[in-house]
Amino acid sequence: MPTGPSTLDAHGTATAAVRPGRRLSAVADALVGSEILKIAGEVRAMVAAGAPVCNLTVGDFSPSEFRIPPHLATEIEAALLAGETNYPPSAGVASLREAVSAFYREWLGLDYPAEQVLITGGARPAIYGTYRTVVDPGDRVVYPVPSWNNNHYCHLSGATGVAVECDAAHAFLPSRDALAGVLRGARLLALNSPLNPAGTAFTADALADVCDLVLEENRRRAATGERALFLMYDQVYWMLTFGETRHVMPTVLRPEMADYTIYVDGISKAFAATGLRVGWAAGPKDVIARMSDLLGHVGAWAPRAEQVASAKVLAATAEVRAYQRQIVDGARQRLDALYDGLRAMRDAGLAVEAIPPMGAIYLSVRFALLGRRTPSGAVLRTNEDVREYLLEAAGLAIVPFQAFGLMEDTGWFRMSVGAVSPAEIAAMLPRLRAALEAVA
Amino acid sequence: MPTGPSTLDAHGTATAAVRPGRRLSAVADALVGSEILKIAGEVRAMVAAGAPVCNLTVGDFSPSEFRIPPHLATEIEAALLAGETNYPPSAGVASLREAVSAFYREWLGLDYPAEQVLITGGARPAIYGTYRTVVDPGDRVVYPVPSWNNNHYCHLSGATGVAVECDAAHAFLPSRDALAGVLRGARLLALNSPLNPAGTAFTADALADVCDLVLEENRRRAATGERALFLMYDQVYWMLTFGETRHVMPTVLRPEMADYTIYVDGISKAFAATGLRVGWAAGPKDVIARMSDLLGHVGAWAPRAEQVASAKVLAATAEVRAYQRQIVDGARQRLDALYDGLRAMRDAGLAVEAIPPMGAIYLSVRFALLGRRTPSGAVLRTNEDVREYLLEAAGLAIVPFQAFGLMEDTGWFRMSVGAVSPAEIAAMLPRLRAALEAVA
Repeated sequence: MPTGPSTLDAHGTATAAVRPGRRLSAVADALVGSEILKIAGEVRAMVAAGAPVCNLTVGDFSPSEFRIPPHLATEIEAALLAGETNYPPSAGVASLREAVSAFYREWLGLDYPAEQVLITGGARPAIYGTYRTVVDPGDRVVYPVPSWNNNHYCHLSGATGVAVECDAAHAFLPSRDALAGVLRGARLLALNSPLNPAGTAFTADALADVCDLVLEENRRRAATGERALFLMYDQVYWMLTFGETRHVMPTVLRPEMADYTIYVDGISKAFAATGLRVGWAAGPKDVIARMSDLLGHVGAWAPRAEQVASAKVLAATAEVRAYQRQIVDGARQRLDALYDGLRAMRDAGLAVEAIPPMGAIYLSVRFALLGRRTPSGAVLRTNEDVREYLLEAAGLAIVPFQAFGLMEDTGWFRMSVGAVSPAEIAAMLPRLRAALEAVA
Repeated sequence: MPTGPSTLDAHGTATAAVRPGRRLSAVADALVGSEILKIAGEVRAMVAAGAPVCNLTVGDFSPSEFRIPPHLATEIEAALLAGETNYPPSAGVASLREAVSAFYREWLGLDYPAEQVLITGGARPAIYGTYRTVVDPGDRVVYPVPSWNNNHYCHLSGATGVAVECDAAHAFLPSRDALAGVLRGARLLALNSPLNPAGTAFTADALADVCDLVLEENRRRAATGERALFLMYDQVYWMLTFGETRHVMPTVLRPEMADYTIYVDGISKAFAATGLRVGWAAGPKDVIARMSDLLGHVGAWAPRAEQVASAKVLAATAEVRAYQRQIVDGARQRLDALYDGLRAMRDAGLAVEAIPPMGAIYLSVRFALLGRRTPSGAVLRTNEDVREYLLEAAGLAIVPFQAFGLMEDTGWFRMSVGAVSPAEIAAMLPRLRAALEAVA
């Protein structure tokens, strides 16, 4: 694990060294407690004490702010009543595999027949399955940081993770140059766009350059007989892309990439349906077939009624379009309110900057407060100090980029807007301004 | 893998040697195609050709024969409408963890507080999670055969499987004597009762003897500082226990076993709800905590609405009791019809025997036809020959015990009744009788 002896994660765990005298497996023993859960505990305590908190830590949707499409619920009920209650086929019900195939063709110009689509219990099993299906223990996996949980998937698959640090100048996404030195001999490159945690997205040029690098490496390997380098492309936020930003894809930019690319996706973010557990992978036939077998044993299937219902919902293009407008507007409204508020503070000379939102439900924000002094006289030395200060002084809960593998104290944080109302954001901004003004 | 170079499984896959020049990971590459799926293909072809087939291969419920409790569907709909659509907590929603805890106390006399209950996406992830949480690559895992998929879980966790052959005289369950020589140094003993595929169940005496062996081994290890031996006890069929049979449990028979026992369970079989993906594990605090972290990354969660609904259903004791009577009656009616029909054939001198059904939806049946000749003159040399003959001659589809790791041609097969009607069984029995009479 290149990201240090104890790294954080967005959902619940981190990894550390295996303890002597352990009772459990090495892989389980090295999973330790969660920084995010610690933050969640602090937030709960403040809320319980009656303090106003704008909770931007949650990488999820609150149903009070974002509901699933109403016809999705209706179709699930209909499927249950129709007896869609027994085992789904291991690879997913045929109607959903067909629906994803048609959806990808219509919406993205991607050509994946149903047999190259694997339905999974949310997008996570598709990520886990990709790692286990192409990576052997000891193989190298290259991933940019900040990114979500790749360190843990390396840990679970026994891979050696190679974290490539990305910076704000590149919207926290990896350039060809950043990757050029590290792909030799790697088994998997794990990319995500739009990006959790940064809320940024690849441009066509930047992604095409990365694809060319992968193709060059694989041409070299074809000559030597080495095993190929795969690309996992997690595009679970693609329907939440804003403004000028256009979602771009490896196999569209470079059709040759089809042999090596595994797409990860699902209804979780597009339909605010993280709890329904319907995701999928699309990729080369051999990868999809073996991943299906592997995840079949793990049992990480999507529930059958939700599969049947999702097939119907994806096929209703006009309704999907209307829902997409609504969820994008909701995310955009909140992100813009944050971004505009932060920019006004910056224009007023306060130590804050942010990257304009491009997609997903996230905003990258930097508080340049390291070395500064709070009203109580404490010096802010780390991102963690800043996080605690802003939580206490402004009732603002955010997650440092350390939780996404960028271990340096750069002052960058993730703000997530899926679980807050515009009113909560509006109420928080003056508190934040006051807290920033109070720092000496 | 002690069960041979290519072993079969009940759902979809088998394992074989890793191929040279492979593109995928070793673990994925060694998963090969399915015998059961091959049988399913043959069954479909016969049905399409208009031939009557009594399909006893499916380890599942057909919704046309067994429906989920009606209030389970109602509660899922209510939960969706109430916005139970976002991420569940990684360990499961609190209400379901509490409900399982109370359900276990009331129905089974088991004392597991909610924090020792982990909700999973069906029972499979609980099995997979148990393996990964206690077993290191290279560790030995002991499991009886016939049993379901332990070879695959060994493969996926890198464990060395030690298959202990069990015979009809012991209802295909392992005795203390059978296990005595092999537990030394093992990390996990994987048991299942009522047993898939045999439809048999442990007696209190037999299980207590096995527990004593585990406790003796762990006392020895405590003295030497060796890591403990765990027991996975898959009791997913416990609510489907028939007649005189009483479901027995390690920690009830031997309270000391609590430190080492991990229960695997779910609503899948008890409520004919395999497609709803709600299961759980109950066990020692440290095991459950780490398994939760591990499965959280895998993403093998139960869908949130189904969790909320399951909590309500489990708490409604009278309704659960009524449903249990109904599903047990349904399974029993079919199993008894099969058993009585087979016994009548045996009494008539035909080469068939069966074990009286004790639980689950399975019947163990033996066709002693090896070396005999079919009307077409072919000699039946293997279980596979017998399976094909009975499918073609009698329209009877069954699964040889080879699919459950008993590789010898013993003549034993699994019959599963979850997906057939009593009428289909009644129509098949005379066809079977004629086919048995026709063998010379």
